[in-house]
Amino acid sequence: MANRGEIAVRIQRACRELGIQTIQVYSEADRDSMAVQMADIAVCIGPARSSESYLNAVRVVEAARSMGADAIHPGYGFLSENAAFARRCEEEGLVFIGPPGEVIATMGDKASARAMAVAAGVPVTPGSSGVVASAAAALDVAGSLGYPVILKAVAGGGGRGMRVVEREAELAAHFEAASREAKAAFGDGAMYVEKYLVGIRHVEIQILSDGERVLHLGERDCSSQRRNQKLVEESPSPGLSEALRVEMGEAAVRLCRHVGYRSAGTIECIVEPASQRFYFMEMNTRVQVEHPVTECVTGIDIVKEQIRIAAGERLSFRQDDVQLRGHAIECRINAEDPERAFAPSPGRVESLRLPGGPGVRVDSHVFAGYVVPPNYDSLIAKLVCWGADRDEALARMQRALAELRVEGVSTTAPFLARLLACDTFRRGAVHTRFVERFIQESTP
Amino acid sequence: MANRGEIAVRIQRACRELGIQTIQVYSEADRDSMAVQMADIAVCIGPARSSESYLNAVRVVEAARSMGADAIHPGYGFLSENAAFARRCEEEGLVFIGPPGEVIATMGDKASARAMAVAAGVPVTPGSSGVVASAAAALDVAGSLGYPVILKAVAGGGGRGMRVVEREAELAAHFEAASREAKAAFGDGAMYVEKYLVGIRHVEIQILSDGERVLHLGERDCSSQRRNQKLVEESPSPGLSEALRVEMGEAAVRLCRHVGYRSAGTIECIVEPASQRFYFMEMNTRVQVEHPVTECVTGIDIVKEQIRIAAGERLSFRQDDVQLRGHAIECRINAEDPERAFAPSPGRVESLRLPGGPGVRVDSHVFAGYVVPPNYDSLIAKLVCWGADRDEALARMQRALAELRVEGVSTTAPFLARLLACDTFRRGAVHTRFVERFIQESTP
Repeated sequence: MANRGEIAVRIQRACRELGIQTIQVYSEADRDSMAVQMADIAVCIGPARSSESYLNAVRVVEAARSMGADAIHPGYGFLSENAAFARRCEEEGLVFIGPPGEVIATMGDKASARAMAVAAGVPVTPGSSGVVASAAAALDVAGSLGYPVILKAVAGGGGRGMRVVEREAELAAHFEAASREAKAAFGDGAMYVEKYLVGIRHVEIQILSDGERVLHLGERDCSSQRRNQKLVEESPSPGLSEALRVEMGEAAVRLCRHVGYRSAGTIECIVEPASQRFYFMEMNTRVQVEHPVTECVTGIDIVKEQIRIAAGERLSFRQDDVQLRGHAIECRINAEDPERAFAPSPGRVESLRLPGGPGVRVDSHVFAGYVVPPNYDSLIAKLVCWGADRDEALARMQRALAELRVEGVSTTAPFLARLLACDTFRRGAVHTRFVERFIQESTP
Repeated sequence: MANRGEIAVRIQRACRELGIQTIQVYSEADRDSMAVQMADIAVCIGPARSSESYLNAVRVVEAARSMGADAIHPGYGFLSENAAFARRCEEEGLVFIGPPGEVIATMGDKASARAMAVAAGVPVTPGSSGVVASAAAALDVAGSLGYPVILKAVAGGGGRGMRVVEREAELAAHFEAASREAKAAFGDGAMYVEKYLVGIRHVEIQILSDGERVLHLGERDCSSQRRNQKLVEESPSPGLSEALRVEMGEAAVRLCRHVGYRSAGTIECIVEPASQRFYFMEMNTRVQVEHPVTECVTGIDIVKEQIRIAAGERLSFRQDDVQLRGHAIECRINAEDPERAFAPSPGRVESLRLPGGPGVRVDSHVFAGYVVPPNYDSLIAKLVCWGADRDEALARMQRALAELRVEGVSTTAPFLARLLACDTFRRGAVHTRFVERFIQESTP
């Protein structure tokens, strides 16, 4: 487990169910974490700062080798989409649980991924045909596309290295800031430019491929975002016709075949609800935060499948076996204070009560007495609610949010309860800028 | 909510999802309970002793009327199968969330239920044709059936008022003890006698009926019992052919039609694995402890359906819509000490960590700081694990049991982990006396 927090716990759960021993690396800030407590073996690899621990490929590989690990699961973020790290693992005789290094290089680079999509006959949003070398070059492209545009780091993810630019005058500053951010977070500051469409939905297709059989597991709608960070995800999407669902699934499979994809992955698209057209945006060559939504409607354990595929196993089911049942919604619970512009709220969790009962899944690494460190992202729990239909899933989520009790740190749960109660969300009529509008309108 | 513990919490969750306000009655021992904390209104109805609180129909009805309740959900145990209470509710203009009083009277009385099964063409185990008036009469019947026999209180449930008799010499004492126990627990000491078959499985069919449409929701296998108390339940049963599954489902529906059943209910049967024959044993005219197992494989919320049916709604789905997906297992976690002959272990829960992640459902009323009272049954949590198949469900359950941490009281979780790890359980080859044999063999 070359990661931390809830995803490290999630991966360990998969390993335990598969009878695989776990080796957890951790930074000094995570010494008392649940992931460390759960692991068969835990190895400290450095100080809190990510660049000296979770982002330090040398130390991660060293720990893996010294403990006799067979494989490395990178989770999401950190080294998960670092092609050099994947290659390094391969060279060291460690199985990297993810796609081959060269596929990460191609698809993790958001500019070349676009080119691949075009080659595979998958529609892409208008934008630069590759990396733009400078703010000046970005200005040229943006001028021909028309504003607003979105600047994206080729190595970006989770909203980092990404900026929406409304006016020409703001482009240069945003370009520099986003590039710097990407350089710091991912070690690569290269940028590209896309037309920023409005009133759109973010819909992504979950893929599983063993290298021969490529299957899609339906879509997730992640339109509820704040600063390009997903807050709420659901499956199926309330904004897709059945015809578009099929078309997008087939396109995602086609693209993955085209690049020789192997492992779990996600094809992220935007959808124009009115025209029911979709455009490829980027690919995530790793497990995603919101993968449980798909697990709840398909019954397929995506992390276990990743591990099995990495171990050389073939997928044991076919496309026809993938049946969506009911509806699932995930709320990301962050240790942030919605009353103070979502400022991080690290600190000691004095007491904790997690929701339970029918249709409720909780993925969390937090426990009473745990200290949320200030060093990493503020995700403390994912609440996932399944229902026979969207109305039931929504009612369950409201019920689960009301049951959740966290004392000691502020959380986004009360905000999410308000968001899910609003008429637009209930009707499933959100778009990618809806949450920000909702925040503006509901702030006195 | 005319109940306590996890089932009161379960019913409140259903109400909350349906937008129904909750009124929770409680005894003095449950003042600080989760059910009281969750409720919109909570009313103390008496001291800890059940006969003066949860079993006191007058006080329950009084509380309901004074608070303006529309309906009463009796949960399981206590007043749930008390026909007089159901009638009393009806007289007072309160909706009793369960079948009509006369159906409870017929089917709750285990002797007349047998007669109904015979009339509906459902096979029954050999036994007395009705109530046996005395130990002497029981001796006569047992003599003609041959030993072992099982003595059952007509009003019994949850293993109370039930005794297996191996030898003639032991019958009279068992008869008196069981009858006394039933009289104390259910207010009715009447007994009947059945042949006690060995090497059998306990398999029960979940029923939902709106009075017109009668559906079955597949079976639960509850063969893992200790002293006639279920410990582990699963669905589907590992010991049933598909043909027998269909046959039992149809028989259960036939019986419910025959008696004019309405609400959720369970037809409990025994199955002889070798012959693949089944016999009706009794009916539970209420929701059962193990209902989540069925909810996990069908996706149907049984408690919500109970409430909807009681409100006069029709079932919104048909038999063909009821599809079993995957496999679910429930472990009952009791505050008991397996090292000390399962002695109750009430007291303060100093700290608590509940399992989570994929496929794990927890139904519990326990939280850190909660004091498990000595006055009631010792169930503190139900762990329910779903998997794509039985192997995955079992691996999840082992993982979930390992994650569970309860400090302050002893629990049966370590014992259950050992039980589920044994080869016989893993092969699904248990029978109703297997657990007791397992305890004997694993006790030094």
